[in-house]
Amino acid sequence: MSILLVGGAGFIGSNLATILLGKGERVVVADNLSRGNLEILTNHFSSDLFDFRNVDISDCDQCAKLFDEYASSEPFSEAWHLAANSDIPTGTLNPDIDFKDTFCSTFQLLKCMRDYGVLKLNFASSSAIYGDLGDSKISENSGPLLPISNYGAMKLASEAICSAAGESFLEFVNIFRFPNVVGVPATHGVILDFFEKLKRTPNQLQVLGNGFQQKAYLHVTDLISAMLFVRENQDNFARINPLNIGPIDEGVQVRWIAERLVERIGRDISIEYGTENRGWVGDVPRFYYSVDKLTKLGWKPSLNSEQAIIKAIDEIAIQEEILSR
Amino acid sequence: MSILLVGGAGFIGSNLATILLGKGERVVVADNLSRGNLEILTNHFSSDLFDFRNVDISDCDQCAKLFDEYASSEPFSEAWHLAANSDIPTGTLNPDIDFKDTFCSTFQLLKCMRDYGVLKLNFASSSAIYGDLGDSKISENSGPLLPISNYGAMKLASEAICSAAGESFLEFVNIFRFPNVVGVPATHGVILDFFEKLKRTPNQLQVLGNGFQQKAYLHVTDLISAMLFVRENQDNFARINPLNIGPIDEGVQVRWIAERLVERIGRDISIEYGTENRGWVGDVPRFYYSVDKLTKLGWKPSLNSEQAIIKAIDEIAIQEEILSR
Repeated sequence: MSILLVGGAGFIGSNLATILLGKGERVVVADNLSRGNLEILTNHFSSDLFDFRNVDISDCDQCAKLFDEYASSEPFSEAWHLAANSDIPTGTLNPDIDFKDTFCSTFQLLKCMRDYGVLKLNFASSSAIYGDLGDSKISENSGPLLPISNYGAMKLASEAICSAAGESFLEFVNIFRFPNVVGVPATHGVILDFFEKLKRTPNQLQVLGNGFQQKAYLHVTDLISAMLFVRENQDNFARINPLNIGPIDEGVQVRWIAERLVERIGRDISIEYGTENRGWVGDVPRFYYSVDKLTKLGWKPSLNSEQAIIKAIDEIAIQEEILSR
Repeated sequence: MSILLVGGAGFIGSNLATILLGKGERVVVADNLSRGNLEILTNHFSSDLFDFRNVDISDCDQCAKLFDEYASSEPFSEAWHLAANSDIPTGTLNPDIDFKDTFCSTFQLLKCMRDYGVLKLNFASSSAIYGDLGDSKISENSGPLLPISNYGAMKLASEAICSAAGESFLEFVNIFRFPNVVGVPATHGVILDFFEKLKRTPNQLQVLGNGFQQKAYLHVTDLISAMLFVRENQDNFARINPLNIGPIDEGVQVRWIAERLVERIGRDISIEYGTENRGWVGDVPRFYYSVDKLTKLGWKPSLNSEQAIIKAIDEIAIQEEILSR
């Protein structure tokens, strides 16, 4: 049996692949490489436990062909679905991207899981499904769910069909609602954005919005530890299991991140802020996230938002230095 | 200017078309006639206010062509989207139907509304987005939203993208969460199901489930009065406006409906029940629906669940007698 990992050539997926392989699991990464990067999987190609397939899971035929290929030899014991368009502003400009990469990927995957009897699903959802619920502390039961970006909308849409599949045929489905996740290999996100801006204007950092947007950040290693904690304690969770994952603190402001990044670089850089309370259409200015459901069962993050950001700034600085050589 | 009414050849859409035309509005019905029926619009073909287009709105090109056709002459002032696959069990067997008719119709419609500057949307959602929340009274803010049918899932998916569109470009979007709606022309639903079963077995009525499933029913005339009440009082509602519509009572049981229908027919019929507490995968056994948000602003239904059922049984009995001649 092997684990199907859709989107395994992305930021979080590649970290998950490494950890699952380290546990001795067989892993088949399926990725269309639209945003994923094959190079970050290079270390695994020599492993007998690892397979890579360049497959667009949102394409009905390609998805079925993949399931068919493995059905007779080493059928999938479970699926992890981490593929999505992670570029929120681009998805607002062109809704077709989120439609295909975020929603249709879930839809076609579920159809094949049913057809081939793969009954365990771990789905990467997002805090973006909650939209802007103001200052209230957001639990898994909070509503109304009115996402304000196409990204959040297509994640909620995906949750909805995962839930219906849970009712009709899945053994279980974990709906992991990710917070902002930081670490390497960074492919997007606020820290990488700042580094890229500084390549263009080395002495000035222009921040989108007024910098008071406050969010919780989790390091990718903690995110994966939370998901694997659930996997190992599946019986303690509901069969259809929406679950917030995040740090326990209330997060940090974007201006704090900008200041730490400038400190790390150690160069004279002026930070310029906008006037809006959000960075872009679909950005949520404040965000309080309850992870009580998860922590009550014994999981704890090793780093809080500040520590996660500091660590990620350091990791991404090194990544960018290596890439620029 | 004219009103675009997608799904206007269906049960609720055709009733809405009649009432809007009666108010002197110009109405363009777009329907792919997959479940809609052109005959029920016959009375309107002679009206200068009425247009019909056989268009599959879930098809990108067909949808754009429709908007293009009207953009120069009489652009759409607002859109009503009532097209969906209303056959829940069929949607469970074949997810492609709900995907295309319920979700993609919303997705393509929103893209064209943005491209052609149509900024007011009334969307027919469903109580099915709530899934099975047990005995709690369900308000618009209730959660978690874990639909248990593909129908409910694709309605929630549609809500999600309507919400994101509300954030990025719509002037307003009403997300009307319909209860079970009864009346004529009946195309589906428990009453019509019973009549059709009795054609096959005239002296025996087999009820799906144990008959204790309890739901609220609204007559179609009350449903439309509620939606037009919102339209006339738009300023009193939020710009992105999810809204439960339903009667004020707690509904009736399926076995009560079966008994009233047998009484109306006035023939010796034995009613047989199943043992399950739900009629099919995706059926919700009990359902308490709060419509406080709507009634607080002054709307009231003219009929309760019992009265709506009695009236609809009578209407559908006459419809079936006429059709069988």
